[in-house]
Amino acid sequence: MNSIDLNSDVGESFGNWSFGDDAAIISSVSSVNVACAFHAGDPSTIRATCAAAAVAGVTVGAHPGYRDLAGFGRRFIDMAPGHLTDEVIYQIGALQALAAVAGTRVSYVKPHGALYNAIAHHTVQAQAVVDAVVSVDPGLPVMVLPNSEIQRLADAAGLRTVVEAFADRSYNPDGSLTSRSLPGAVILDPARVTEQALRLAAERQVRAVDGTLLDVPVESICLHGDTPGAVTLTATVRAALQDAGILIRSFV
Amino acid sequence: MNSIDLNSDVGESFGNWSFGDDAAIISSVSSVNVACAFHAGDPSTIRATCAAAAVAGVTVGAHPGYRDLAGFGRRFIDMAPGHLTDEVIYQIGALQALAAVAGTRVSYVKPHGALYNAIAHHTVQAQAVVDAVVSVDPGLPVMVLPNSEIQRLADAAGLRTVVEAFADRSYNPDGSLTSRSLPGAVILDPARVTEQALRLAAERQVRAVDGTLLDVPVESICLHGDTPGAVTLTATVRAALQDAGILIRSFV
Amino acid sequence: MNSIDLNSDVGESFGNWSFGDDAAIISSVSSVNVACAFHAGDPSTIRATCAAAAVAGVTVGAHPGYRDLAGFGRRFIDMAPGHLTDEVIYQIGALQALAAVAGTRVSYVKPHGALYNAIAHHTVQAQAVVDAVVSVDPGLPVMVLPNSEIQRLADAAGLRTVVEAFADRSYNPDGSLTSRSLPGAVILDPARVTEQALRLAAERQVRAVDGTLLDVPVESICLHGDTPGAVTLTATVRAALQDAGILIRSFV
Amino acid sequence: MNSIDLNSDVGESFGNWSFGDDAAIISSVSSVNVACAFHAGDPSTIRATCAAAAVAGVTVGAHPGYRDLAGFGRRFIDMAPGHLTDEVIYQIGALQALAAVAGTRVSYVKPHGALYNAIAHHTVQAQAVVDAVVSVDPGLPVMVLPNSEIQRLADAAGLRTVVEAFADRSYNPDGSLTSRSLPGAVILDPARVTEQALRLAAERQVRAVDGTLLDVPVESICLHGDTPGAVTLTATVRAALQDAGILIRSFV
Repeated sequence: MNSIDLNSDVGESFGNWSFGDDAAIISSVSSVNVACAFHAGDPSTIRATCAAAAVAGVTVGAHPGYRDLAGFGRRFIDMAPGHLTDEVIYQIGALQALAAVAGTRVSYVKPHGALYNAIAHHTVQAQAVVDAVVSVDPGLPVMVLPNSEIQRLADAAGLRTVVEAFADRSYNPDGSLTSRSLPGAVILDPARVTEQALRLAAERQVRAVDGTLLDVPVESICLHGDTPGAVTLTATVRAALQDAGILIRSFV
Repeated sequence: MNSIDLNSDVGESFGNWSFGDDAAIISSVSSVNVACAFHAGDPSTIRATCAAAAVAGVTVGAHPGYRDLAGFGRRFIDMAPGHLTDEVIYQIGALQALAAVAGTRVSYVKPHGALYNAIAHHTVQAQAVVDAVVSVDPGLPVMVLPNSEIQRLADAAGLRTVVEAFADRSYNPDGSLTSRSLPGAVILDPARVTEQALRLAAERQVRAVDGTLLDVPVESICLHGDTPGAVTLTATVRAALQDAGILIRSFV
Repeated sequence: MNSIDLNSDVGESFGNWSFGDDAAIISSVSSVNVACAFHAGDPSTIRATCAAAAVAGVTVGAHPGYRDLAGFGRRFIDMAPGHLTDEVIYQIGALQALAAVAGTRVSYVKPHGALYNAIAHHTVQAQAVVDAVVSVDPGLPVMVLPNSEIQRLADAAGLRTVVEAFADRSYNPDGSLTSRSLPGAVILDPARVTEQALRLAAERQVRAVDGTLLDVPVESICLHGDTPGAVTLTATVRAALQDAGILIRSFV
Repeated sequence: MNSIDLNSDVGESFGNWSFGDDAAIISSVSSVNVACAFHAGDPSTIRATCAAAAVAGVTVGAHPGYRDLAGFGRRFIDMAPGHLTDEVIYQIGALQALAAVAGTRVSYVKPHGALYNAIAHHTVQAQAVVDAVVSVDPGLPVMVLPNSEIQRLADAAGLRTVVEAFADRSYNPDGSLTSRSLPGAVILDPARVTEQALRLAAERQVRAVDGTLLDVPVESICLHGDTPGAVTLTATVRAALQDAGILIRSFV
């Protein structure tokens, strides 16, 4: 039976500020990327999120980011690689302890926001993240954009890489994402998002903006849960995949 | 052969700001309380400190504090106990990961500064710290002030408690420390500090301000290393203890 | 014609995290307490909030708090008074610059959260806040709880004090607020909140929990805007006051 | 009589962490760039630094930086320009209040570290800084690297620009600084640093690495004070300039 992982970001509330509907997300996906308190999240939020994931049988991944609460980790910071390595180790370790207390464990690593974007092409920062994962646990998979620096360097280091794709982003014919500065970069029509998710899960393919069908070795589809509409869409995608006989389950 | 542990705080530099002479301290003591980045320390400092401790064969303890870089963790914060528990778990976990990467491990917990002072008498925060340690690893000892709430509650929870005493603080006849607001609370004369350390290590006793000799079930003597004079004093105390045939070694 | 000020907290979003409905609040009150980025708020949020207040003709007050984003300024911090004075000066100055750019100015000071609660009784911190206001501008009024340390010390320093009362809190016969740990401390029934607001505005009186009518020299009524229900209630109170012929206007 | 300004960074201690010898610097220069608590500095440090500058008759400038204590403002952050503008306004305003309390005022703006480097070429961030200064006070000069984006945009906005040069950096024949990644970028020999300072002050010229003499419309020479050697060097340069009959005084 065909299966696919669905992943989404969670644990991004901070102190008195709420963010996202973690309960709804956790009920719809098979893997959650849990903030580690550098770009978002606080220890109690993180623990509660891990506990909810544990109860739901959803896999927990570390979602480390730049130390930038004011920017939500969405701004590139030109960090020295040694510092980045150590900050990623720190964040993974902190999450490991809270996950264990909550009855689960950290099963993969997916960097957040501007760090995720940077390591798709920034060789030095990508290697710094690889170094962190290798040193904490070389058995931890890293979730990656296909054809990225982080994929190449993680593969070279012997880490397992898990390719993810986006149901709501449009693709260039070379397999890269279209620029967010172009119209149509984010697919808003729920029917088209669902269609793209189905093609990714059933065929491991995506239709590029020029109509080309591209092969994508996708193991996980990323869904966004930080708006009410997104939560509904996540549930819709999940239902469509299940109706198509596709099993939604974690890659671990 | 009689033995005693010497402990001191390390890893308290932060980014561009240096603090303390960790190398000198590590060469003189048998246990180091490593900052966990909430009151001081940053991941790269912490990792380097753990690596130096590993090379020197010095035991590493977690030194969690309030989330207060601006106050160096020296100001009481009236935290909710659940948040405190989760912040201590987070800090211990982060340090565990960095210590492992550096070739060592976290062998005990000693809270820092205002948190250390609070849990000597603040029952709710003391229990919050106990809950954190129990949930991370009930085999982790907690370093405590004798006759404190944290000692009582940690004992009740089945944690091992390690009593520490101070070579440079004066004691009341009931075994409590004299108030820092009183003259003589901190002993500045190196000869008297050394004498008190020797009595603590050799006799497990301390002479109170009224002359009474008090029994103290001390397993570790705390030395301060954050001034040049203190570093010299630490080396002096170490030499005096060794000359008296006392083995300086960790309690673990 | 009788008049009263209505005040509420605003500007408490932070980066990617939203908080409160500032637009709705600003349309209902005559004074807004604007966060200064220590407990909440970021410079762009603060500026936008000031600009909205300027457009609406609503008076802007500084709402300084403890440096504690993780705790939203709701946790007492045992700060040294000199540091507290300087942090309050810093926050007022930062807000003055942003308010000026936004076309308005800082017209009063009302400390936030745990700092507000502390200075009702904590003499040293209350004096520290007074020292800050006196040094920035002795013409700035301070909004105070009646019969508080901050009122006494601000009066003694020659500052104008503006007494505020709460439409949704119950009062003891001695004029103090009932403890939040007791049932009934917060009045939830909109009809009773409106009744208390009307009595405060029209009679400068409040009915204590034992039925006694107390005189309160109130110049401003504090309304909370951080929940959808609270925003509706604020509008309801405003309408009731206006129906009773009471002018809602700032005390400055 | 020929005159020149000497400027240096101060106020960069933070809480329990000391940095630099502000007293020595203030006694040697005519202008100090005071940290504003985003990259370094805390309100009490800032106030004390301003008070010392006021007593010494040294001009105070605002030294705003990225919000990055962990990186000391030395790492580029890809901020949105509106956020940068508002953060610079916030920092200047906070410093204005503390400077006024300390008996002085903010007389110019010089961005710090990575922000200083960015706005030499990053048009969007340079314009964001210009917008901040114009909106706070269009009479505030901005200290700039010659031939930089910030100089061009500040000039275009009608701001006064103050060109600074470095006594301890080597120059390319086109007037730009040589890359720090090349040997010789930083001049370590005190005699050569003093010689370059004298040529800058007396001739408004600098000798490039190929021997060319370049004209530099310099109004201020930047000296670094964050090492003991640098403090001595600053005093040496000052003495040499005075011996050559050059008056050391602020440009304002």
